[in-house]
Amino acid sequence: MHDELLVWTIRLLKKAGFDNEQGLRFAEALIWSDLVGRDTHGIWRLPAYLARLEARLIKCPCSPTLCADSQAVAVMDGDQGLGHYVGHEAMSLAIGKAAKFGVGAVGVHNSNHFGTGAYFVNLAAENNMIGLAFSNSVARVAAYGGREPVFGTNPFAFGVPGREGKNMLLDMSTSGLCGSQVMKYAEEGKPLPEGIAVDAQGKSVLDARELDSAALLPFGGARGYGIALMIEILSSVLTGALFSTKVNSMFKNFNDSGENGHFFLAIDLSQMGSPEVFSERLESLFSTVRSSGNAEGDVLVPGDTRWLRKQENTELGIPVDPLTFLGLEKLSVRFGISAPEQVRNDGPGELSAPLAIKL
Amino acid sequence: MHDELLVWTIRLLKKAGFDNEQGLRFAEALIWSDLVGRDTHGIWRLPAYLARLEARLIKCPCSPTLCADSQAVAVMDGDQGLGHYVGHEAMSLAIGKAAKFGVGAVGVHNSNHFGTGAYFVNLAAENNMIGLAFSNSVARVAAYGGREPVFGTNPFAFGVPGREGKNMLLDMSTSGLCGSQVMKYAEEGKPLPEGIAVDAQGKSVLDARELDSAALLPFGGARGYGIALMIEILSSVLTGALFSTKVNSMFKNFNDSGENGHFFLAIDLSQMGSPEVFSERLESLFSTVRSSGNAEGDVLVPGDTRWLRKQENTELGIPVDPLTFLGLEKLSVRFGISAPEQVRNDGPGELSAPLAIKL
Repeated sequence: MHDELLVWTIRLLKKAGFDNEQGLRFAEALIWSDLVGRDTHGIWRLPAYLARLEARLIKCPCSPTLCADSQAVAVMDGDQGLGHYVGHEAMSLAIGKAAKFGVGAVGVHNSNHFGTGAYFVNLAAENNMIGLAFSNSVARVAAYGGREPVFGTNPFAFGVPGREGKNMLLDMSTSGLCGSQVMKYAEEGKPLPEGIAVDAQGKSVLDARELDSAALLPFGGARGYGIALMIEILSSVLTGALFSTKVNSMFKNFNDSGENGHFFLAIDLSQMGSPEVFSERLESLFSTVRSSGNAEGDVLVPGDTRWLRKQENTELGIPVDPLTFLGLEKLSVRFGISAPEQVRNDGPGELSAPLAIKL
Repeated sequence: MHDELLVWTIRLLKKAGFDNEQGLRFAEALIWSDLVGRDTHGIWRLPAYLARLEARLIKCPCSPTLCADSQAVAVMDGDQGLGHYVGHEAMSLAIGKAAKFGVGAVGVHNSNHFGTGAYFVNLAAENNMIGLAFSNSVARVAAYGGREPVFGTNPFAFGVPGREGKNMLLDMSTSGLCGSQVMKYAEEGKPLPEGIAVDAQGKSVLDARELDSAALLPFGGARGYGIALMIEILSSVLTGALFSTKVNSMFKNFNDSGENGHFFLAIDLSQMGSPEVFSERLESLFSTVRSSGNAEGDVLVPGDTRWLRKQENTELGIPVDPLTFLGLEKLSVRFGISAPEQVRNDGPGELSAPLAIKL
């Protein structure tokens, strides 16, 4: 049942004229996010991506090329393609290089919003490798001590192979709130927590509707600022992508391609020792961490919730919130395909009152 | 004048029987920390290192070997040597591999406390490379949601080449307070800020004297926990070092070697494009960040303060606090060398009432 949303998306892309391997790759990455319960990077974003595809701000198909390729490293020109597809190509290249040299690093420029970093580091983990994936994005976040946005919410993703395919997946924005949470606060009119955003005078902003003219703050103060800066350097200064205030919004700028930059790294476990020994040691560390004294149950390891949601959603269907569902119905009408059927309204999705989709 | 503290340290190590290249490398790294104003990782720690050297818990000389060496990656057995020396060897190897393959990654086990990560990523930056340096350390920090220490303060260091040798150097603990700050709070009896430490019942600990039986919290909540976990995995699970609660304290365990693990990565800028173009783009990003609206002056870039202190300390001498100075005097008497001469008590050192040292 869970792949019906994927089938619907592919059918829609076909009707819209993006019936190719790149569209398929995009659909897979998009619906994977929904499947593992991260609906903020799933089907909810489809209307925005589709609008950009139709406006040719995202090229599909695109023709990525390498502008540097030296043994274990490369820089890819994404040719303004779908970030999900370009990212998949770049991480696959990093994985191939790691298989040959032990480690591979690939930077990308001229790309677009790549969805969720967890998807790419999971690719590395599926190949028995450790993966890192970074991206810059439209400037929303101030430096530590600053008042104007100079960084994107710049995601940091790290993955390692876990047992039974349950890989450890860390994927986080380097702002105190990620972009999707900010949009939800704005939509629902909820007051923001203290320390999340500041205005141009440095005053704390608590009304989410004022966020358009405010700057988010990095997570963890000066330390989070340092990590956001590192991601900006690796994914844009190093790769040739636009950076800081120059990156274009996927939601607000319908004149220009995103021009995002990414950075991918893969390390082959088998060339640094025995993957089996690594796995045993990892489980031992996880066991220590899980049992380190949480009154509400075990301490969670990054990725735990994703694999739990994946199991639930595979069995019960992917939950979709009503507003998103309305958008999908409209798209179905426009492209003359059957709307997805609503089958689930008790799901644990992150958005309010989720309804599951069945084709 | 600034190198007189280095000369004194080398003289002391000679008298103590550690007169070799490895002792010199250690002294250089130690005093570099003082020179750039990070006295928490400088001469202040010498008595503890010396005690471990004399007890043969740190071997000097040691004979590091490679237990894995595959093209661009390697794993080094540090032979229980000085972490500063072993780390220098491992980062140098990563730099050599990056020069050949574009990127190099080297893990280390069987090492000891390596001092400050900034020193190692600065080595990469001096070679026109991007550097990463991670280490685990004695367990002081709880997981997010946990109550017992399962991670060290696990430093995260990142460096990139800057103009005129002023490299960007990010070096931070992944706990809300770093280990040295904790010791200072305890020494001075100052109350801790909220959210820094918890006891076994999950209650916030505000009295620094209770920290021995408490757990520090990771910086930035769940995100900082994820990064601390990543560092533990890369520097120990991957390398074969002891991990989590098994790592030995350099200050409290005088029966066992530290058994710390490290992870180093270097990326050669010249193989991913033009280092000159990188430098121009980096300065442009820094310029945007610096001028992004701080009322107290420019926003700082990680490393700024270090290079400022380096200039001051090179001119005026390295400031040393009175308590540390007393320890150095005692060591001088014990080993029959002249005590360092006090020349500076107006310095901007981080410890209270600093006094500068002149041989």
